[in-house]
Amino acid sequence: MKNISDNGLRITENVTSERDSSGLGDGGGFNRRNLLKASTLLGGGGLISQAVVPTRASAQQPSQTGAPGRLNEKDILTKARERLYPTCRVCPVCDGVACSGDGGGIAGSGTGMSFQNNFTALQRVKLMMRNVHDVTRADTSTTIFGHKISLPAVCAPMGPAATKFGKGMTQQEWFDSIVGGCVAAGTLGAVGDMLTYPIEDVKRNLKVVERFQGKALYNSKPVANEIILKWQPEIDATKAAWLSIDVDSGPKSVAQLTELVRAFKMPVVVKGIMRLDDALRCVDAGVAGIAVSNHGGRRQDHTAGIAEVLPAIASKLKGKVPILTDGCVATGSDVLKYLALGADVVMVGRHLLRAAYGGGADGVAFFMNKMRAELQSAMVLTGVPSVSKIDGSILYA
Amino acid sequence: MKNISDNGLRITENVTSERDSSGLGDGGGFNRRNLLKASTLLGGGGLISQAVVPTRASAQQPSQTGAPGRLNEKDILTKARERLYPTCRVCPVCDGVACSGDGGGIAGSGTGMSFQNNFTALQRVKLMMRNVHDVTRADTSTTIFGHKISLPAVCAPMGPAATKFGKGMTQQEWFDSIVGGCVAAGTLGAVGDMLTYPIEDVKRNLKVVERFQGKALYNSKPVANEIILKWQPEIDATKAAWLSIDVDSGPKSVAQLTELVRAFKMPVVVKGIMRLDDALRCVDAGVAGIAVSNHGGRRQDHTAGIAEVLPAIASKLKGKVPILTDGCVATGSDVLKYLALGADVVMVGRHLLRAAYGGGADGVAFFMNKMRAELQSAMVLTGVPSVSKIDGSILYA
Amino acid sequence: MKNISDNGLRITENVTSERDSSGLGDGGGFNRRNLLKASTLLGGGGLISQAVVPTRASAQQPSQTGAPGRLNEKDILTKARERLYPTCRVCPVCDGVACSGDGGGIAGSGTGMSFQNNFTALQRVKLMMRNVHDVTRADTSTTIFGHKISLPAVCAPMGPAATKFGKGMTQQEWFDSIVGGCVAAGTLGAVGDMLTYPIEDVKRNLKVVERFQGKALYNSKPVANEIILKWQPEIDATKAAWLSIDVDSGPKSVAQLTELVRAFKMPVVVKGIMRLDDALRCVDAGVAGIAVSNHGGRRQDHTAGIAEVLPAIASKLKGKVPILTDGCVATGSDVLKYLALGADVVMVGRHLLRAAYGGGADGVAFFMNKMRAELQSAMVLTGVPSVSKIDGSILYA
Amino acid sequence: MKNISDNGLRITENVTSERDSSGLGDGGGFNRRNLLKASTLLGGGGLISQAVVPTRASAQQPSQTGAPGRLNEKDILTKARERLYPTCRVCPVCDGVACSGDGGGIAGSGTGMSFQNNFTALQRVKLMMRNVHDVTRADTSTTIFGHKISLPAVCAPMGPAATKFGKGMTQQEWFDSIVGGCVAAGTLGAVGDMLTYPIEDVKRNLKVVERFQGKALYNSKPVANEIILKWQPEIDATKAAWLSIDVDSGPKSVAQLTELVRAFKMPVVVKGIMRLDDALRCVDAGVAGIAVSNHGGRRQDHTAGIAEVLPAIASKLKGKVPILTDGCVATGSDVLKYLALGADVVMVGRHLLRAAYGGGADGVAFFMNKMRAELQSAMVLTGVPSVSKIDGSILYA
Repeated sequence: MKNISDNGLRITENVTSERDSSGLGDGGGFNRRNLLKASTLLGGGGLISQAVVPTRASAQQPSQTGAPGRLNEKDILTKARERLYPTCRVCPVCDGVACSGDGGGIAGSGTGMSFQNNFTALQRVKLMMRNVHDVTRADTSTTIFGHKISLPAVCAPMGPAATKFGKGMTQQEWFDSIVGGCVAAGTLGAVGDMLTYPIEDVKRNLKVVERFQGKALYNSKPVANEIILKWQPEIDATKAAWLSIDVDSGPKSVAQLTELVRAFKMPVVVKGIMRLDDALRCVDAGVAGIAVSNHGGRRQDHTAGIAEVLPAIASKLKGKVPILTDGCVATGSDVLKYLALGADVVMVGRHLLRAAYGGGADGVAFFMNKMRAELQSAMVLTGVPSVSKIDGSILYA
Repeated sequence: MKNISDNGLRITENVTSERDSSGLGDGGGFNRRNLLKASTLLGGGGLISQAVVPTRASAQQPSQTGAPGRLNEKDILTKARERLYPTCRVCPVCDGVACSGDGGGIAGSGTGMSFQNNFTALQRVKLMMRNVHDVTRADTSTTIFGHKISLPAVCAPMGPAATKFGKGMTQQEWFDSIVGGCVAAGTLGAVGDMLTYPIEDVKRNLKVVERFQGKALYNSKPVANEIILKWQPEIDATKAAWLSIDVDSGPKSVAQLTELVRAFKMPVVVKGIMRLDDALRCVDAGVAGIAVSNHGGRRQDHTAGIAEVLPAIASKLKGKVPILTDGCVATGSDVLKYLALGADVVMVGRHLLRAAYGGGADGVAFFMNKMRAELQSAMVLTGVPSVSKIDGSILYA
Repeated sequence: MKNISDNGLRITENVTSERDSSGLGDGGGFNRRNLLKASTLLGGGGLISQAVVPTRASAQQPSQTGAPGRLNEKDILTKARERLYPTCRVCPVCDGVACSGDGGGIAGSGTGMSFQNNFTALQRVKLMMRNVHDVTRADTSTTIFGHKISLPAVCAPMGPAATKFGKGMTQQEWFDSIVGGCVAAGTLGAVGDMLTYPIEDVKRNLKVVERFQGKALYNSKPVANEIILKWQPEIDATKAAWLSIDVDSGPKSVAQLTELVRAFKMPVVVKGIMRLDDALRCVDAGVAGIAVSNHGGRRQDHTAGIAEVLPAIASKLKGKVPILTDGCVATGSDVLKYLALGADVVMVGRHLLRAAYGGGADGVAFFMNKMRAELQSAMVLTGVPSVSKIDGSILYA
Repeated sequence: MKNISDNGLRITENVTSERDSSGLGDGGGFNRRNLLKASTLLGGGGLISQAVVPTRASAQQPSQTGAPGRLNEKDILTKARERLYPTCRVCPVCDGVACSGDGGGIAGSGTGMSFQNNFTALQRVKLMMRNVHDVTRADTSTTIFGHKISLPAVCAPMGPAATKFGKGMTQQEWFDSIVGGCVAAGTLGAVGDMLTYPIEDVKRNLKVVERFQGKALYNSKPVANEIILKWQPEIDATKAAWLSIDVDSGPKSVAQLTELVRAFKMPVVVKGIMRLDDALRCVDAGVAGIAVSNHGGRRQDHTAGIAEVLPAIASKLKGKVPILTDGCVATGSDVLKYLALGADVVMVGRHLLRAAYGGGADGVAFFMNKMRAELQSAMVLTGVPSVSKIDGSILYA
């Protein structure tokens, strides 16, 4: 996979030292204070806002100490901040606070409460450790629409507009980073696009999916069905893992969804479901899966958080259609929590964007591998040997 | 409507670019950080207080990027701050924190908890997106006392004292701004007054209502009935949309309210109702409508928040008398939430005051149009085609 | 009452302009920002801590604008801060945050959570405005142990140690201030003492009660009964309103309380009751009244807040014995809330200490008068004409 | 006990002045502001983070005013900060906020929420004072596995890695400090180790337990049973109070636990139990006791707090096996709260580490004695004469 490490950094496949009999090393090296200091130099706004979040969560626990020449989290985040500031401050904890009110592609819509509600709702979910059992290794892999993936987390659809959030990233580099990195980590990338964009652009972006042999989902903005249907042959030709339609930025009726489901050979997933009735309508439309999502809080202010609405939907549909979700997934523990609440696979957006800006495909793979290691550890410490065994019994109620 | 753009700014009628098939653009341009920086220069107190509110809500999402010569939100707020500081810091989020303890006309009473309770109670109300349906356009218009308005939000009664909050605003300019701007945006203005003020002032303010052909409510402070009744002919002559009496700054008995209802030709609305029993007494008195309000938290410290008390009142009176309300309405989503809780029309105070100081009638119209566009978008994303279809089913419970 | 204005300031008897038909003026003049600025100059710690309290409550709403030569709140607080800093920062909101961990006589015990729990529990109690009625004047007076007082708030027992909290206050001045000021405002003062202190001191302090004709409660630390009983003749001779024993700094048994009740001619009130079972034991011991109190949070860390425990006690004992209480009473609204929760009379400590340091007896009277005016207004706006009519129906549940 | 005061400081055995008839002096001397100021000089990050914790808890109430030559809390904490910064900022309140995201041995795992959940859950537990009774002295002593200890708090197992957190502490000094100090205070120390470390180190650390005549628990990381069993003779020879196995850093099955229980002569305690089912499995394995613990939040992010999960476990197992626990124990009130929730003995980690760095064994003894005095006072003010009488009736529910 030569093309994904062209930035001269060598990716570390095993981002955490293997757990030995002494337990799961709690890491070292990366230092929140230093990031906070950098934050101060680059823009006090981000720092101050961070300093006042109700809970002081911070950057993910680092996995290694940053030996020279090896990719490490600190370097990725530092570089990401250099390139993304001020659109994104790459806060130690990405909670929608510092960027609230910014609008645009990363911040939450309006006052940013939907983004913050996503964060808070997930943070309130607590795990119950289970430590008396014989699970010493957990299998983090799972299967979605026939694709075996190394962990139940894939790339969230992000469009070419993401190249405008920071400095010096072409659309080609962007999609190669997020798809290539995810594929390198054994999971699926994503290509998000708008079918009304220039035809050459749309075609080039579709080619990304093909180049990675369909190991990515393809997401279309909810443009009119006639436009989507016009592109159907090209889209199906990519053999993307599935077609995602995000109705949270433009509703579609059951009839419209049915039309799309029937027209496409690939599975159709409807993204932007926040209510059981909407989810049931999707099932009526024959969709292959649903994605519980409020578009990362970027379309409508003041919506409920994902972790608040997911359980009601999962209680009726778990096992009937795959349930995807997204919203502030930052660590392997977050993945575990969403699965315990009923999701089958989560999608990761903002954190992969940071990783892509901070380390290209290598950065994305680094992040996904780190998340997988964190998930593996969290599964052992909650006593679940495999993804299918994750359920609500590991949550504090 | 020449007289409302005499400040040389050209008002933009369509404040948001129309929603195309690609969704509802999340805006750009206005930048919370910049306002925070300006805030620092002008007065750290406001900044620090803002920096510590539990949730980091911020200014409304901007609707346009501020092309030269066109009115934009950033310029309005910057100018408003210049003119209103320190009485009002024009905080990114207007939540009663920075001004708590200031007393006077804008801050909450006493420790400011009533103002803050209004804010917090509304912020806690969460929307449930509904995205599988065929509502692609929502009609934001509604009718109140025979007046068709472009959105279910009107000006809250604010008196001539508002001219003392900032620099360089005559009573004439003040009322022309808030009434003219609302009328320009297709809704109703408000003239608040005290009938014991100098007769010429009262007469001039009543003339404002007449000049705008009654497209404003007229609010009298709860002075003694005999004084109100003495002015009845002049008030009725204005053909104001309705007469509002704010009993939250001075209670009135059922007998007193009945007397007013019988004396006036125009509808009488009692403002300052926080309990069902009070609301039922108003109905006994024959009022045309009630306004659930704690006077913006400016009369009594430590009252419950509006969003906390509104549902109990609406559960009994919805559809029997129009229910108005006010309290921290800042965006179209706030309008939607109050209507989902049972209100028919909301009133907007502080934010129109800021808009008036920042852009005169044009600023007021700009704000109302922006709020209408936000409401339209929020209605589509909750699947409600018209105001009458808004109900509690779009709320997260 | 010449002797209480010997500091050259003229006390204003009517601290709020009378409420006219236009409502209850929301004041002006005193400015939180200015106090915050002063705070910055004198010690950033207090400021920063204040700046981060979850809710931004602030100093009491001022009652007048500070005309030269007239006592006003701003001057009192400024002077109090000069004299009390750093033992007390005279924070805009006195919530136990800035002084947490200081120990000593003003701060909460240990980590300060009991003090903060008192504050938070009371702040969470919300009033329901009632505005449709014919109550335009409320009678704030009440009677306790035969003493008619102008409002249901008296001085909390504070001992001579309070003279060590700031600069230049003799024991004589201290007690003259807090008793004299309360008496001037038509209510009762308090003399708190330790009967093992030097005999001359104890005698002089007892004389204060006599000098003010028994218009004060007398509180003894819970020293051994034999010591208290030795002083019984002198104590009874003062004709103090009642004898208060604060068992929250040293428990006493039913037998010990019974012994005291029988020995004294004056009513005996047991202070420091936080549980119904303790309250019932007091009744068994024949006490004249109980005081629900955790000693202002100054004896035991992490206790529940007063407003949390008061209702359970009042539900059984209201009307059987007078129920006093204390804990973060800062405004007339606070008085109203505690009475609505079941108390008969509240005691005010820290705020009178600040007033005494800031304005002597005049400052104390000023504060009590202001609180009475606030209570009067709050009673009108909740529709209760007299103290005996205050009950839980005015609270948001 | 000469060897534990070799740092030239004289330990004060009675850290609080005895409670006289006047009550329990609320101390003085140590000053949070001063620590905050020192904090500012040494590193703003810690200060700022502290300044924004939701509740402003602070350092323990000081017990004496720091007379020259006598050990006092202020000096201990100041010195601890000098030696531990930046690994530990020795915050006035140790709540996991300032160090969140640091990883390593002191901070919480990942975003630090488990550490913070421990803190918050315990802080929310509130005591109900009980003051009408005849308990004037409380006996804080208890017995655990045949060892009478002066208070129900022992040292938490901390390993030799703790010597890397700060400057200039050998493994020998480290264990001598934490064991020696605890023994001097009449309770048990702890030696935590990893049996795969260099043999000489393991042997030397085992010798510490022997030297203090078994007045310490010995904790082994959950390495493979065969390794633990190989060391069984040496471990049993130490006559440690018990063998602790912390399965929260590596689960063990019932069979594996059973094997250890059978092999060892000394009691085996399983640490890292967060669920009733795990606790019952331990009982099945025949363990001597369980320790409810999430490893101080240092192994798995986002777990529930100890005070949240302890009651369910205690409700079934109280009285059947000794229940130990740990998690943010900072004061005697914290000890009382955990016991009221069902624990028999608590373990203290981070605060003893600070004490050891700040004052060696003397500092550790000082802290334990202070905590005992605080517990004694808290027991009197909740009316419990002895440890066995502590139950949930003293908590606010």
